[in-house]
Amino acid sequence: MGIMIFDIEILEVGARDGLQNEKVIFDTESKVRLITDAMAAGVKRLEVASFVNPKRVPQMADGEAVIERLPDDPVVTYIGLVLNKRGLLRALETKSGGKRGVDEVGLVAMATDTFGQKNQGQTSQESVDLCLDMMKFSHAQNMSVQVTLSAAFGCPFEGRVDQSHVIEMARQLAEGNPREIALADTIGVASPAKVTEMLGRLKEALPGIPLRAHFHNTRGTGLANAWAALLAGVTTLDASVGGLGGCPFAPKATGNIATEDLVYLLHESGVTTGVNLDNYLENLNWIEQDLGRVVPGMVKQAGGFPAGNVRP
Amino acid sequence: MGIMIFDIEILEVGARDGLQNEKVIFDTESKVRLITDAMAAGVKRLEVASFVNPKRVPQMADGEAVIERLPDDPVVTYIGLVLNKRGLLRALETKSGGKRGVDEVGLVAMATDTFGQKNQGQTSQESVDLCLDMMKFSHAQNMSVQVTLSAAFGCPFEGRVDQSHVIEMARQLAEGNPREIALADTIGVASPAKVTEMLGRLKEALPGIPLRAHFHNTRGTGLANAWAALLAGVTTLDASVGGLGGCPFAPKATGNIATEDLVYLLHESGVTTGVNLDNYLENLNWIEQDLGRVVPGMVKQAGGFPAGNVRP
Repeated sequence: MGIMIFDIEILEVGARDGLQNEKVIFDTESKVRLITDAMAAGVKRLEVASFVNPKRVPQMADGEAVIERLPDDPVVTYIGLVLNKRGLLRALETKSGGKRGVDEVGLVAMATDTFGQKNQGQTSQESVDLCLDMMKFSHAQNMSVQVTLSAAFGCPFEGRVDQSHVIEMARQLAEGNPREIALADTIGVASPAKVTEMLGRLKEALPGIPLRAHFHNTRGTGLANAWAALLAGVTTLDASVGGLGGCPFAPKATGNIATEDLVYLLHESGVTTGVNLDNYLENLNWIEQDLGRVVPGMVKQAGGFPAGNVRP
Repeated sequence: MGIMIFDIEILEVGARDGLQNEKVIFDTESKVRLITDAMAAGVKRLEVASFVNPKRVPQMADGEAVIERLPDDPVVTYIGLVLNKRGLLRALETKSGGKRGVDEVGLVAMATDTFGQKNQGQTSQESVDLCLDMMKFSHAQNMSVQVTLSAAFGCPFEGRVDQSHVIEMARQLAEGNPREIALADTIGVASPAKVTEMLGRLKEALPGIPLRAHFHNTRGTGLANAWAALLAGVTTLDASVGGLGGCPFAPKATGNIATEDLVYLLHESGVTTGVNLDNYLENLNWIEQDLGRVVPGMVKQAGGFPAGNVRP
């Protein structure tokens, strides 16, 4: 929906992937504040809710209420995550009666059978087939749709994931014409060389499809992987304000890469994002207060580049 | 002294740059254990002491005692940091009476005048001139010597640092024939694009001189910078076990990049280091106990790549 006028697009996932795994449950108002604060800081694309079973993910139970309260900003894309047709119908329903609702749905296919079974009771292939079905249905409803390959760099249960399998999944999913395909390092095991290799193969296999990458900083490698992904040609990077989040179904998966740390790295590297770093850091004041702890993101503690009396 | 048979050399700085900024003072025995544990895990080059004023850096007061207790391992290089001639004489003295002593001294030149003044009462140029003097003296004593350009990517007092100034410093220092020139991001402000650019310029200006890089993870960018440095052709990367350390003279500078996180990233990227990751993680058990806290390095908490039932 937004027009991309920066070198790279930041997709803020704090309100969904971030809060979903926090022990402190943010109320609807706080979620809306987190989202609109990020928008005020320049973010143009955000995961705002997931339409999943509220019994499994109680943090996300108020998806519809959050979306109803969001401002009707025409240059912003609101994404709802859906894992099945029930969720997809809920996402579509947010637009009923002429309401703005979500602008895009995000689907998820699982790179391994065990991760798929534990998460959704599906094999990897079944998750691909379901995504293809849901893409067709979304398109028929004029709903923009993209898909993320989860655990693409490693699985908490099966360990290593065959790159060729991931590429083959992506090839099948591309048949459904998603607006974008994303690789997710759900458990934070990726390394920059693997990111370079995997995205290189993906670009070669699927020229023309925009690529996105989603990293967790579980082993400290998140920003190195994000930089490798940028060099490999992704158009969008996921990140979560403060580095909130994780995955409730993946043991030991800690937070997403922190949006403010990523923005620091990118701006210092001469890559524009449209995001105002100072605003982002300010927003974290109330978020840290509500969480009752310091966020994992490091620029919040250290501050940006030190001001000095000599300029380049 | 060691022969480089791996893709990249890890220089373990935990016993010096690491412990120097920890509140808990490790006794001589614990320092020796930290060093020999790292050697047992495969590290071949280590900063083992600094010969600085014990009133300013009490953590390093027992440099000579540490060195006297180190095993005479022929494939390992022990480095002593010296900041002035008094320190250099102390380093040379460790070899007196046929003792092993240190194998190499590390010198430091300051990239900005204010950082130099606050650290050593010298301008940037004075620190370069002193290093050149000390290199001549070291060579006359058959002591191997290298030099690090401190605050090369940014200064806590002056902010941005002119790249051309850093390159010019390195050009002058190269006249003294150091075995290696290192760029240090003392306060953790560097970004991968700046690392790529700066090391590219340095390689062009000084072909043939081995380059080393030293990063702090103050803003979460340390491993991304290390990866950029590796791609830019450094032969050695500094890292500190657990991510210990900082710089007592640089406000808000947190720890070095964690050796175990770096090794994880490198091994997962197919880059060999000769370091055994599991041994490194085991060594951190007693270190965390002695520190009384969890280390900043993340692989210690998360563990290595999860073992699974599927292998690549």
